[in-house]
Parts: sequence; structure tokens; C-alpha cells
Amino acid sequence: MNIIDVSTASPYPVITGCGLLEETGEYIKHYVPRAETVAVITDDTVAALYGDRITASLRAAGLRVIRCVIPHGEASKTAAAYLEILQFLAQEQLTRSDAVVALGGGVVGDLAGFAAATYLRGIDYVQIPTTLLAQVDSSVGGKTAVDLPAGKNLAGAFYQPRLVLCDAETLRTLPAHVFADGCAEVIKYGILWDEDLFEHLRARGTDFDREYVIPRCIELKRDVVVEDEFDRGSRRLLNLGHTLAHAVEKLSDYRISHGNAVAMGIAAITRAAAEQGYCSRECAGRIEEILLRFGLPAGFEDSEVHIGINDIYESVLADKKRRGGRISLIIPREIGDCEIRTMSLEEMKVFLEAAL
Amino acid sequence: MNIIDVSTASPYPVITGCGLLEETGEYIKHYVPRAETVAVITDDTVAALYGDRITASLRAAGLRVIRCVIPHGEASKTAAAYLEILQFLAQEQLTRSDAVVALGGGVVGDLAGFAAATYLRGIDYVQIPTTLLAQVDSSVGGKTAVDLPAGKNLAGAFYQPRLVLCDAETLRTLPAHVFADGCAEVIKYGILWDEDLFEHLRARGTDFDREYVIPRCIELKRDVVVEDEFDRGSRRLLNLGHTLAHAVEKLSDYRISHGNAVAMGIAAITRAAAEQGYCSRECAGRIEEILLRFGLPAGFEDSEVHIGINDIYESVLADKKRRGGRISLIIPREIGDCEIRTMSLEEMKVFLEAAL
Repeated sequence: MNIIDVSTASPYPVITGCGLLEETGEYIKHYVPRAETVAVITDDTVAALYGDRITASLRAAGLRVIRCVIPHGEASKTAAAYLEILQFLAQEQLTRSDAVVALGGGVVGDLAGFAAATYLRGIDYVQIPTTLLAQVDSSVGGKTAVDLPAGKNLAGAFYQPRLVLCDAETLRTLPAHVFADGCAEVIKYGILWDEDLFEHLRARGTDFDREYVIPRCIELKRDVVVEDEFDRGSRRLLNLGHTLAHAVEKLSDYRISHGNAVAMGIAAITRAAAEQGYCSRECAGRIEEILLRFGLPAGFEDSEVHIGINDIYESVLADKKRRGGRISLIIPREIGDCEIRTMSLEEMKVFLEAAL
Repeated sequence: MNIIDVSTASPYPVITGCGLLEETGEYIKHYVPRAETVAVITDDTVAALYGDRITASLRAAGLRVIRCVIPHGEASKTAAAYLEILQFLAQEQLTRSDAVVALGGGVVGDLAGFAAATYLRGIDYVQIPTTLLAQVDSSVGGKTAVDLPAGKNLAGAFYQPRLVLCDAETLRTLPAHVFADGCAEVIKYGILWDEDLFEHLRARGTDFDREYVIPRCIELKRDVVVEDEFDRGSRRLLNLGHTLAHAVEKLSDYRISHGNAVAMGIAAITRAAAEQGYCSRECAGRIEEILLRFGLPAGFEDSEVHIGINDIYESVLADKKRRGGRISLIIPREIGDCEIRTMSLEEMKVFLEAAL
């Protein structure tokens, strides 16, 4: 068991370990002592696996439990599902001193977090992420959101939980491709800030030490989020590989998973960086090697969908209209050291062209 | 022209005066310099009166203006209208550096404020309240919300604007009953904190000096909100008359306006307070007198709807289920000095019974 304190404006602990689910009730009693009723928001897959275990633990701690189960998958991340959760909380007369628990992956966290942020203008919120991606990524940062017809994550809030519980045991039940999604993010942390972490991952592959890697990633994310809570500066480093990944996901109509798309994005940026002398060929080689070691794609050519530089350019252009005319690319210099370069879309095109 | 600085976590000015609408563009250029596009959210009534004037001023300042007009009235304060505004902002590709302007009364401010708080997880927001109630009440405090089928204001956010412009000229076009709604709140500030303000109002009635009264009320609200941004302590004083008012509004199916309901609530509480020796009969008499001077009801007996203590008890009981078993009543001791008394619902019943 490991406690990482996140000292955003409203501070909270992220607790990692094995078998934490069984102790959910006690943790909530300790960290959210006012709560009498706990609304567990989860999806059908996770409910079947862990719903009863959590409920039993909460009840044993003397808490009233109510449950709202949404269909699993990205398609649930809508304004309609968000409103349904709000209605559920209202009908169950959850009070300002009760709590919402998000039990599941990123979609559940995003939906339940946004509902908790806005129900009665904000009630206490506990996150129990059950995927690797959610544990190392969404457990810190306070970003919640839903998609709108016009695009992804267009409505949401910055809202910090009271407590996050990351139980490594939940990762055992993850399908391989869902686990791989998280691995791409874990590798990203190594490239951004920590060569030791990177080398551990390169040596061990998917068999990495959960009790070292997960808390380490959370710490790294914590450090950058605390520095930049509202995402206006250094936090942009977390976008390594992501500008391209978003274009790839969109162009593939979301058939390519987020993790695979991030791996492709990291690979392409790294190759371009090496071509243009930002990083050494040896560094680029190590990044390619680690992606392959994890069974992740090390370039667009591995993709079932044909994606060229013009497709990416058009996609980024459409996306960036909403954020102004320039773009920030995150570029590796060495393992553990990346930089933010802001450039025009034309410059991005030239920068990436060589690598594609 | 008067500037009141509100130093919440993210500080902003409330500017009061006459003819500010014509200068909207310049004010926004100054206080929200990043904005290129301004989305004006308003209702059909206000759009017809002031829409063109604001648009002209914004365009003259070099801003792109887009407009979203909702039907006027409380019935628009729904999750559906909120989502429509979000869709509108997304379709118009408003960016994180653009701004939303709420032009109208409380409903427009609540809806547009909640949309601004959550679109792209929060974009800059300017409030131009055009009713007396919105100018003296919702201009400070950062509360935004929509109603859900299960109840009023159940979803929302605390979100501070960048700038508030209160143009006293917009009050000239208000229907008398809408103006009266605001008067009840203005009187409330006098009873809570300021005997001079109270006496000015008692002497002048609805002909009170706008340039003194409006900024004074905003200052008083500012002081209590800055002390208690998230509504956990002294800010509850603002609820003077409101627990009863909410019950009355609900029992009358919202045929009794908020201002009239607040006046009834203040009258009943004051009478009960005098009965039980919390305040002098002379103080209670002055409060009754001022309500009548403003054409506001000074008791439930003036109401077209018959409301007895049991109705109120049941209504408060239903409402308070969601907030725990005890209730805080705000009780006048003297003009300018009130206290918060927390009691059980049974005690409330006994307290009020004598006065009804």
C-alpha cells in the first residue's frame, strides 16, 4: 500500500496497492466521514466483476449504497448519460454531504466525475479506477468531461476527488487490448521524465512491477498537475504523442484504440525528432524498441488504416480551429527529457513529413 | 460609474452605472483581452430590447459576435436548454480564449453561466444582468444552475465571471412585478446589514436612488461571499426569508413570484421573532411598513393562495430531506443585525406557529 498526496487547491490522496477494493468502506469512512449514502456509478462489465465486493465493503462500514449502472464503452460518454446520472442522484435524494463513487475505467470516471462536480454544485467524489489507463492517467488531474455531437470532451469540469483507490488486482481481469492502452501511457511517463522507469519497462515488458510502476506514474503526473492545475503550461507535456493520436483515432473512426494511437503518435514524433536532430538515433531506437516490446505499433505503417501526412494535417487543422492557429508538439530530446515546441500548422507538416 | 472588486479565488469587478451597455465592447476588450469571439446568450424579450445595442458595441470593438436566444421565463432553466447552449457554442467552434456574455435576468445568467463553466471545462464569462434581482443578487456569488425534473437548481457549478456590468438603465424597461422581485432582495440587505440603506428605502420606496442602492447591495453581498465562497457559513444569512419563500413558491405552483414569496417569508419570520422576543415590536413594525411601502405582501394572509403552517412544514420537510434533518432560520434581532439559528423541523414549527 502506497499513498501519494496530491496537493491541488483541494488536496487528496491516491492510494495504490493490492486488495484495496475489499477495504473501500473503511477508506471512505476515513476520508469522507460526512457521507451517509454512497452512490456507486459503474458500467455493466465492472458491476459484474466487482460490484458486489464494493457494495459489501461499503455496507459493512455502515454506509447506505445506491447503484447506477451504465452500458460499458465510449458510446456512453454522452450528455444524455450524464443527465441520467444527475436524475438518478436527484431521485435518490443524495445530499450535499453524501458521496459519489466512480468504479470503472475512463468513461465511468469522466461521467461520474462530471455528475459529482455539478450535482448540487458539487458533492464529494471518490474514484476507483479499474483500468491501467485510468489508474495512471485520469486518477490525477481532475479532468472530467462528456462528448457532444460536435466533438469529444467538449463539456466538463475540473473537479478533484476526495480520494482515489487504485487496486492493482482489478488489472488482472482487463482484456489485453485494454491493458495495452494503459501501457502506452506508462511508457510515455518514462520518455517524459524518468529513464529508470523507462528501462524497467524496456526490460520487463508487460510483466512490469505493478507496485513500482503504477505509483511512480501517478507521482510523475501529480508533480506536473500540481504545478499547472488548470492545464495552461507544463502540463501540456502530457500530450506527448497525443496530437497525432487524436487525429489517428478520428481518421480510423475510433477503430484504432487510444493506446495504439498514442504509440503511433510517439513513434512518429520520435522519428521526426531524430531526422531533424532533436534527439539521437539511439534514443529513437530505444523508443521504437520499447513500443514493439509491448506489442504496440511503432509507426503508422503498422496500421490497418492508411494514414498519410495530409490526412493528419487536415484532421489537426479541423481540431485546432477551436484553439487558435498554432500548435504545440511535444518532442523527445532524450529519454526523460522532452520539450514543448509551438509552431504553425505548416511547420508541423514540414516537421512530420520526413518521418511518415 | 462605480467599480466593486470581488476578490474570490479568481477576482473580478462588478461595474455599476448608467449607459454601460453602449460601452460593452470596450469593457470586454479591457477585461477579457484574449477574446476574439463573444457568444451573447440572452432571451427573446431582452434580445428585442438590447440585443442590437450590445452587438453594435461589441462589433465596434472588433469582436465577432454570435447570438443564442432562448425563450424568456423560468421554464427555460432546464438541462435541455443548457445542452442546447453547449451545442451552439461547440457548433460555432468557440475556443478556450473566447467569451460567453449572459445578457438578461437570473434565468439567462444561470444557464449561460453553467454553460460557460463547463464548455471546454470552463471559458471566460461576462455577466450583464438586466433585472434588479440579478444585479443585486446573482451578480456576485458565482452560483449557476439549472432545474431537474426532481427539483430546482439541482445541477450547476460555482463559477466566477471575469466581469459584471450592471446598467441601471435596463431597469426602466422592467415590468413592475419583476422590479418588485428585486426590491424584496434589496430590502433584505438593509435588514441584514445596513440600517442606513434600510432607512433610505423606507423613505423613498421604489423611487430609491439607483446609484447608491445597487452598488451598496452588491458590496454587502460581496463581503459575505468573499468570506464564504462555497456557501458553508455566514453566507447562509442571505437566506433571510428564503426557506419560507421556497415553500410558498412551491405551494403556489410558482404563481407567487420569488420577490413576493421572499417578502412573505421575511414578514412571517419577523413576526415570529417579535412574538418570541428576538426582536422588538418596533423593529417588526418597521419591517412590515417597508414591505407595504414597496407594495410587497407583509404576510401570508395577503396571498391569493391559502398557506398554513402545516403546508409549510410538509414542504420544508420534503425539501430538507436532501440536506439533513435540521434547518437554519435567519432571524432579525434589529435592523442591520440578524442571526442564524439552527433548529429541528419541530422547533421550526413551534417557532413559526405563533406568527401565522
